[in-house]
Amino acid sequence: MNRRIILDCDPGHDDAMAMMLAASKLSNLKLEAITTVAGNVDVEKNTNNALRLCDLLGLNAVPVAKGVAQPLVRKMKAAAHVHGKSGLDGTTLPDKPIKQIINQHAVDLIIEKIIDSDGDITIVPTGPLTNIALAIRKEPKIIPKIKEIVLMGGGTYGNRTPAAEFNIYVDAEAAKIVFESGVQIEMFGLDVTHQALATSDRMKEMSDINNPVAAAVMQMMNFYSRIYQGKLGFTGAAVHDPCPVAYLIDPTMFEMERVRVDIETKGEFTYGMTCVYTNGMTDRVPNANFARTLNQDKFWDLFIRSLKSYS
Amino acid sequence: MNRRIILDCDPGHDDAMAMMLAASKLSNLKLEAITTVAGNVDVEKNTNNALRLCDLLGLNAVPVAKGVAQPLVRKMKAAAHVHGKSGLDGTTLPDKPIKQIINQHAVDLIIEKIIDSDGDITIVPTGPLTNIALAIRKEPKIIPKIKEIVLMGGGTYGNRTPAAEFNIYVDAEAAKIVFESGVQIEMFGLDVTHQALATSDRMKEMSDINNPVAAAVMQMMNFYSRIYQGKLGFTGAAVHDPCPVAYLIDPTMFEMERVRVDIETKGEFTYGMTCVYTNGMTDRVPNANFARTLNQDKFWDLFIRSLKSYS
Amino acid sequence: MNRRIILDCDPGHDDAMAMMLAASKLSNLKLEAITTVAGNVDVEKNTNNALRLCDLLGLNAVPVAKGVAQPLVRKMKAAAHVHGKSGLDGTTLPDKPIKQIINQHAVDLIIEKIIDSDGDITIVPTGPLTNIALAIRKEPKIIPKIKEIVLMGGGTYGNRTPAAEFNIYVDAEAAKIVFESGVQIEMFGLDVTHQALATSDRMKEMSDINNPVAAAVMQMMNFYSRIYQGKLGFTGAAVHDPCPVAYLIDPTMFEMERVRVDIETKGEFTYGMTCVYTNGMTDRVPNANFARTLNQDKFWDLFIRSLKSYS
Amino acid sequence: MNRRIILDCDPGHDDAMAMMLAASKLSNLKLEAITTVAGNVDVEKNTNNALRLCDLLGLNAVPVAKGVAQPLVRKMKAAAHVHGKSGLDGTTLPDKPIKQIINQHAVDLIIEKIIDSDGDITIVPTGPLTNIALAIRKEPKIIPKIKEIVLMGGGTYGNRTPAAEFNIYVDAEAAKIVFESGVQIEMFGLDVTHQALATSDRMKEMSDINNPVAAAVMQMMNFYSRIYQGKLGFTGAAVHDPCPVAYLIDPTMFEMERVRVDIETKGEFTYGMTCVYTNGMTDRVPNANFARTLNQDKFWDLFIRSLKSYS
Ligand SMILES: [Ca+2]
Ligand SMILES: [Ca+2]
Ligand SMILES: [Ca+2]
Ligand SMILES: [Ca+2]
Repeated sequence: MNRRIILDCDPGHDDAMAMMLAASKLSNLKLEAITTVAGNVDVEKNTNNALRLCDLLGLNAVPVAKGVAQPLVRKMKAAAHVHGKSGLDGTTLPDKPIKQIINQHAVDLIIEKIIDSDGDITIVPTGPLTNIALAIRKEPKIIPKIKEIVLMGGGTYGNRTPAAEFNIYVDAEAAKIVFESGVQIEMFGLDVTHQALATSDRMKEMSDINNPVAAAVMQMMNFYSRIYQGKLGFTGAAVHDPCPVAYLIDPTMFEMERVRVDIETKGEFTYGMTCVYTNGMTDRVPNANFARTLNQDKFWDLFIRSLKSYS
Repeated sequence: MNRRIILDCDPGHDDAMAMMLAASKLSNLKLEAITTVAGNVDVEKNTNNALRLCDLLGLNAVPVAKGVAQPLVRKMKAAAHVHGKSGLDGTTLPDKPIKQIINQHAVDLIIEKIIDSDGDITIVPTGPLTNIALAIRKEPKIIPKIKEIVLMGGGTYGNRTPAAEFNIYVDAEAAKIVFESGVQIEMFGLDVTHQALATSDRMKEMSDINNPVAAAVMQMMNFYSRIYQGKLGFTGAAVHDPCPVAYLIDPTMFEMERVRVDIETKGEFTYGMTCVYTNGMTDRVPNANFARTLNQDKFWDLFIRSLKSYS
Repeated sequence: MNRRIILDCDPGHDDAMAMMLAASKLSNLKLEAITTVAGNVDVEKNTNNALRLCDLLGLNAVPVAKGVAQPLVRKMKAAAHVHGKSGLDGTTLPDKPIKQIINQHAVDLIIEKIIDSDGDITIVPTGPLTNIALAIRKEPKIIPKIKEIVLMGGGTYGNRTPAAEFNIYVDAEAAKIVFESGVQIEMFGLDVTHQALATSDRMKEMSDINNPVAAAVMQMMNFYSRIYQGKLGFTGAAVHDPCPVAYLIDPTMFEMERVRVDIETKGEFTYGMTCVYTNGMTDRVPNANFARTLNQDKFWDLFIRSLKSYS
Repeated sequence: MNRRIILDCDPGHDDAMAMMLAASKLSNLKLEAITTVAGNVDVEKNTNNALRLCDLLGLNAVPVAKGVAQPLVRKMKAAAHVHGKSGLDGTTLPDKPIKQIINQHAVDLIIEKIIDSDGDITIVPTGPLTNIALAIRKEPKIIPKIKEIVLMGGGTYGNRTPAAEFNIYVDAEAAKIVFESGVQIEMFGLDVTHQALATSDRMKEMSDINNPVAAAVMQMMNFYSRIYQGKLGFTGAAVHDPCPVAYLIDPTMFEMERVRVDIETKGEFTYGMTCVYTNGMTDRVPNANFARTLNQDKFWDLFIRSLKSYS
């Protein structure tokens, strides 16, 4: 039986890979909607990218709705240095998509889908949490009806600052709302996404796959890897956003730990930190399952077989 | 020609008086909508009160929409000690209203009204700014189309804490969004609303007016005054929320000053302070007109004549 | 019997007037020491000014010790725009003092004086509280032996920012230490010092006094008044620092209120605010007596008679 | 030639081991002074422990001065759960030391030693940085004369909270002063001290050494290990405080990285975090060398040979 999800994203090279995983023939996921948010680049470009990727992946039937253009409280800070000017630089996808957005705000689409569901829809955010936070505040009745939120964000260390990961840094107030909402959360932060490394060996294996999706993903990988291997000194690109999708397809490839997560919104140098309390470091109620380790072989096996499934 | 307004409120005794002023035969205002928000008490009760007051004031044609149930980021803190359990204690209004809310969220009604307007609608918030902030974030296109925001909130000192006035204290993040939005703001804070004192003489004059609206307002005044004269040590009740409405009817009764206002959201003891920069205390761009002084005679003359107009 | 005090200051025009009051023939105060701190200008200049003022006032026997050169945690922010480059611009006092500082750090002199006392020494700070905070942390045994701290600082509004008065703004962490120390505090903030206005009438009366101290004080008044009447729009100069000294000479000229004061050290716009809780606004233990009102006639009568006593 | 150091500490089991290393026959360090501070337990107990350890290690000639009893700004939070009630539980050392403290405050001893030196004294703090911060503020002339500060504290993650290591958490304001002082800093945080693990093999090797110092150190190790292996889930005790001393004896056992460190003092959940900027994450000037890796074999070889040297 298929598991219903809403993918809330800011594509973004690794968002694209998450979409690829979710839409592949191997996936057990039913994409109810794709919603976009300001993040890697502005929401207009992220939405355009989402539509272009739907064209590529054959997601004609999935509604795409545009979401919030700015973080909840703070001013926008984009990540064009990682994803390029378009947010998806390096590919030869057509600039203009065929698919169009629906005429409904992402926040309202999320609310409608959840309210109309039997409590069986999972939200998968791979960008800043602004849409989800707004939906929760606008219609708190969705809280008990969200099955769970399985997100990429945070970690015990940061990439945007020493303390904060990009998605949470962009909108820590939204993250605070989500983590304090009471919804069940599965959190895939840098600790585990930095284990999802596209090393040269894996890149070679992928480059042998002969279909348009694999070709586009390889273009993205190549662009994205240059940043990681260059400035950041990694041995390969860390593909963050596919992790929560991979977890939904095969949870056995992750080790999860029950933790308390608090979101820092006041700090001078630590805005957007996800403070992860383990080992009884706090008496407060746990509010998330935190991904510690990834079985890399299982992950790349799924990733590569998914790519092949588009042939 | 009538001036179109949306009244965003949390009635509340003084919100009720603001509605009375706005709806009176003397008013030049056209109420496009009444929207409610969590504040003095929870949004359910505030909405119920708004409907009961519409019944009292004959506002059958004005749509009432229920808004947000919680502050944007922080947990709710109500003010039942001032307004009683129902939010409108002390009156003999029927508990259940005849009028009903429309089936649209306050945030969406605000967005729709503004987008469909010719840029001629003024928003008059007399509660926390959560609805307005959410509307701005959900649909930033409304920003250049809002004529102005004429609000009760803040001041150079507080009533909820030494630093913060209640409306801003409840949701300082929302206030920050509104004050940084670029919309023209007229701000009526405690400095001026504490000049709108219902002294014994004025109370006596009002109690001689013989109509149901005046009677209900007197019941509210009596309840509300006991708090102000008792615990707070005032010589009369300060009727905060009518001030922005009175300004729209007759701006000559106020002296305004062009200022910069910044909203404190980080402080340990000062959360929700409106920091009002005058006299060149800052180089930053002014973003509000701040009401300094009220002509009390003009104010109470308008107030009392408005009450009489319901006869 | 004389009351023993240590004057901790950053002269400063109004610090000079505080010294004049304390040293006059009318004063019941015995100056045990004068200690200096960074504030209006740097500690070197403030110390030089203290020595020049001792020469003027005949304070040959009072030890002067130089204190801390920087706020406890934050970077220094001086107030040369009010007091001029020297910290005491506008006078014709000789640049170089005859009197010299003692070879002991202000913090150590304070500690020694308090420890050696019978618990009968009052500290009178009219600058930032850095020396006092450091003395308390270095030798906490002084806490129960300080008779009281009678200080100029803070208020329910600010002059350096909308929220913060200069002395507390310069070193809010030091103020926090002092207000949380448990020592009895009498606080003279802007609310009351702005009542100590040197109006034109009073200036005229003072200018008729014919002695070198009065002449120097008038030079200071004239320089200082220009700032207050010009940029700040006052009807006369507010002479802040003499207030705590005047209180020690004649407490009947002030109305005091028992309050809780908390010092804001975290705020984005409110660093250095003294949050004054009155009227049961908090359950926490009161820690200060807050000066509400000044009997201006009594104050200026004392001030002018003190000036005359130098003839 | 010997390198002159001042050891500023809060013994503490691992402080004791740092003293042992510094005082051993293998050490090239000349202990100019031992100063104590509130930290693991209160300053009285920490001082008593320092004296007892001097008796054990034969440090008769080294002056010991007692320092500050409380953090600079915040209230004290001790770590008795790690070090036991005495701060040095588990040993059979006599409760009362023979050696006595000198009659000078630690802060003044540090200032005097540095001012009287030729700029050749290194400060080695293995507790909260309160004494050092106070010395810097009281006498800023020491800043250019301190050779360097080689400290145990901080890290890219915490042990007292998810964000903060104990020494920095206890007094983040003091840490901020030290890290912003301009003094050359070598920082040994949890990233590297967690590599200094006393595993069972090493414990066995040490337990074979037959002299009173080794016996006492083994008692400490056993007590301290139980905490680490029990509640904290380590495979051995992490001996934090010997790291900076080991570095001074043999810098080749560490890999250091030039970084910028900022101290968080405002955060809601992150107070006391040392934000370590590497890889061009900031444009601000680097202010510390950060220890990344430890050659464990070299470290334990030195440690064990040092223990043997007491035979
Ligand atoms: Ca993303
Ligand atoms: Ca209201
Ligand atoms: Ca002063
Ligand atoms: Ca230690």
